[in-house]
Amino acid sequence: MKPVKVGICGLGTVGGGTFNVLTNNAKDIARRAGRDIIIEQVAMRHPNPAVEIGSVKTTEDVADVISNPDIDIVVELIGGYTVAKDVVMGAIENGKHVVTANKALIAVYGSEIFAAAEAKGVSVMYEAAVAGGIPIIKAIREGLAANHINWLAGIINGTGNFILTEMRDKGRDFADVLAEAQALGYAEADPTFDVEGIDAAHKLTILASIAYGIPLQFEHCYTEGISKVAPEDVEYAEELGYRIKHLGISSRTEKGIDLRVHPTLIPEHRPIAKVDGVLNAVTVNGDAVGDTLYVGAGAGAGPTASAVVADIIDLARTLEAPASASVNHLAFDSESIDNLRVLPIEQVETAYYLRIQVQDRTGVLASIATTLSEHDINIEALIQKEPRMENDLAQIIILTHKVEEARMNAAIEAVESLDSTHGKITRIRVEHLD
Amino acid sequence: MKPVKVGICGLGTVGGGTFNVLTNNAKDIARRAGRDIIIEQVAMRHPNPAVEIGSVKTTEDVADVISNPDIDIVVELIGGYTVAKDVVMGAIENGKHVVTANKALIAVYGSEIFAAAEAKGVSVMYEAAVAGGIPIIKAIREGLAANHINWLAGIINGTGNFILTEMRDKGRDFADVLAEAQALGYAEADPTFDVEGIDAAHKLTILASIAYGIPLQFEHCYTEGISKVAPEDVEYAEELGYRIKHLGISSRTEKGIDLRVHPTLIPEHRPIAKVDGVLNAVTVNGDAVGDTLYVGAGAGAGPTASAVVADIIDLARTLEAPASASVNHLAFDSESIDNLRVLPIEQVETAYYLRIQVQDRTGVLASIATTLSEHDINIEALIQKEPRMENDLAQIIILTHKVEEARMNAAIEAVESLDSTHGKITRIRVEHLD
Repeated sequence: MKPVKVGICGLGTVGGGTFNVLTNNAKDIARRAGRDIIIEQVAMRHPNPAVEIGSVKTTEDVADVISNPDIDIVVELIGGYTVAKDVVMGAIENGKHVVTANKALIAVYGSEIFAAAEAKGVSVMYEAAVAGGIPIIKAIREGLAANHINWLAGIINGTGNFILTEMRDKGRDFADVLAEAQALGYAEADPTFDVEGIDAAHKLTILASIAYGIPLQFEHCYTEGISKVAPEDVEYAEELGYRIKHLGISSRTEKGIDLRVHPTLIPEHRPIAKVDGVLNAVTVNGDAVGDTLYVGAGAGAGPTASAVVADIIDLARTLEAPASASVNHLAFDSESIDNLRVLPIEQVETAYYLRIQVQDRTGVLASIATTLSEHDINIEALIQKEPRMENDLAQIIILTHKVEEARMNAAIEAVESLDSTHGKITRIRVEHLD
Repeated sequence: MKPVKVGICGLGTVGGGTFNVLTNNAKDIARRAGRDIIIEQVAMRHPNPAVEIGSVKTTEDVADVISNPDIDIVVELIGGYTVAKDVVMGAIENGKHVVTANKALIAVYGSEIFAAAEAKGVSVMYEAAVAGGIPIIKAIREGLAANHINWLAGIINGTGNFILTEMRDKGRDFADVLAEAQALGYAEADPTFDVEGIDAAHKLTILASIAYGIPLQFEHCYTEGISKVAPEDVEYAEELGYRIKHLGISSRTEKGIDLRVHPTLIPEHRPIAKVDGVLNAVTVNGDAVGDTLYVGAGAGAGPTASAVVADIIDLARTLEAPASASVNHLAFDSESIDNLRVLPIEQVETAYYLRIQVQDRTGVLASIATTLSEHDINIEALIQKEPRMENDLAQIIILTHKVEEARMNAAIEAVESLDSTHGKITRIRVEHLD
């Protein structure tokens, strides 16, 4: 079969990695794809010192790539919403297939992009957008296609997982570890996307859509970062048999779809609780298969390129096939996408970890327990920690049973207004993932 | 698009599960496949009480299914090599696509079956043959297709993992746990296939072929069971920071392909070391992606059906596409399959755990160390255990660095012939998976 020709837009970390994987593994890739895959042209603003560009044509203008009649597949590795969106839409308009690693673009503009692609009969592939080298999009869209997916939960931001792992292993605090992560290059100079959960929310939005066949609804994803997790919370969680992870969680409930990113206590015996450092992991529960877990590197040149090139190979194989031979963009037939409601966070039910600072005197514990009981909140475990700081405050740690968030908000407000309570209550959600 | 019609041969545990998943999830499956998938006929010898067969046509003769002109896809869920092989070859001969969960059939007769299928332009899918519901065939053939796969290692027999987990958690011995596993239905009445590693060797043979693009060579897979693992080995391994797992391991070395199933010490911090109970897990290392790990249920009606039905959906999507749109049976173009040599076990290099029973007197340890040193074997760790059994023998536990098996055999023979050594040395291979 005739070679497939690829145009790469963006030669940064991921673009360079993709160039190198396609070049270094060209022989094996051709054996798998049944045809050669050739890099026809690269659009780049600066050379990448990790790449030997050789005789490949280069340009500074992405328009040259998307209008190049020799190119079958345009690979968008620029990032962001502006130029990247123009590249993707322009390539589709010119009848080219697209591969992208751009989670933000897919989470926010995916519906528009996929509609345009379907109208043109081309595919937009985005395995690299979620969990780097882990083939999680393929696992959910294809590998678990027989299942009614009940829920999924993922550690889908490596920077956040690195920070929480260091906090636990070394008792360090958030700001300290973040500074180190920035020095090591794990975290961006502006870490907001990572530590505030926005990056994870982009990825979770995509996973939920392909799991349930619902529209991409990034704007309805509840997002809470890890910057307020204190070392003592990590320590108390451990004492109770839990680990704190920054999880993206989505489940299908009778009331609607649950879609949220926040720090979460999970039982330490769950396999995903043991995924540490910069690794990513996603657990998916389907009605037939039960729980499955996928673990691997969530970022970096090689892992991300692995996913980008897998998409290119998939496209190469089906290039001459009818469009119906390709997997649906959001896993389900676009005409049957179900507009299920995303639950507002106030209606989500979870268990809670609460850390309450109190005056250390008799009757305090009783008044807190009474207040929670009045709000119909059941206590599963409680530990009281004697004062150990200069301020002479004791800490009460409570694990509750599941309760609707709105009710918990009211209960927290009531406990905070007790005379004996000092300051704000720390609240972290708890998931048992069963 | 017109519905796809499926014929199921065999309505046992997996056949019943497949029937039920196709029936219960029909609506979601159609939304994913873009067309209805209909069970046209079932060949069965006995009714399955878990299945409401309804108006589906049944027959006792598999020949009715493979010759049924309405059927597009024949699903072989009979097991074994005889009838199952006839069904698969007959279906191919009649131009039908095939889905099977039969690891033994694929590992032993795969080359013949795939050649026949390619000649007829049909596909034989076998996701369910390895690691049940985990989409590991898809992950390796497609998800990691960009990579030069360096090695893989898997816990691919749930019964064996259950037994080793119980031995560790409760200090029980092998025979005792096996009896319980049989009572619970995890292990067959004849447990040989599971505990002697034959089942795992079938699966490993398949994984290695699709990882490296080599022929199926079950006959060259080295196989060693777990029946000789003693509770004290589990305990000492733990003391040294390791877990014992029954692993299928394959790596690509300069000398050839390493292909072996045996009990293995792995460092306890490796994620796969923490996969317990009946779960399966496979770690794959690729040059671009690094390590990835896949965990889930390796057997049972639901998980196996999940994989079978995923294959059916893949076939449904590409039914009208040219054959080149389908993934190659062994991942690589059949004309480029590399006949790499499988290393005889004597040439494989691993580290070792040795347990040596000795007379408890001075100089014994020195003479063992000297003997190992004479064979150029380096000791990484050593613990001596005081006699605790009635026979007054001490035990010396040694971890070695990597050494070729032939040299280790010679060293073991030499140590066994020392006056102070009592009986046979226990030897378990050690893999660091890095």
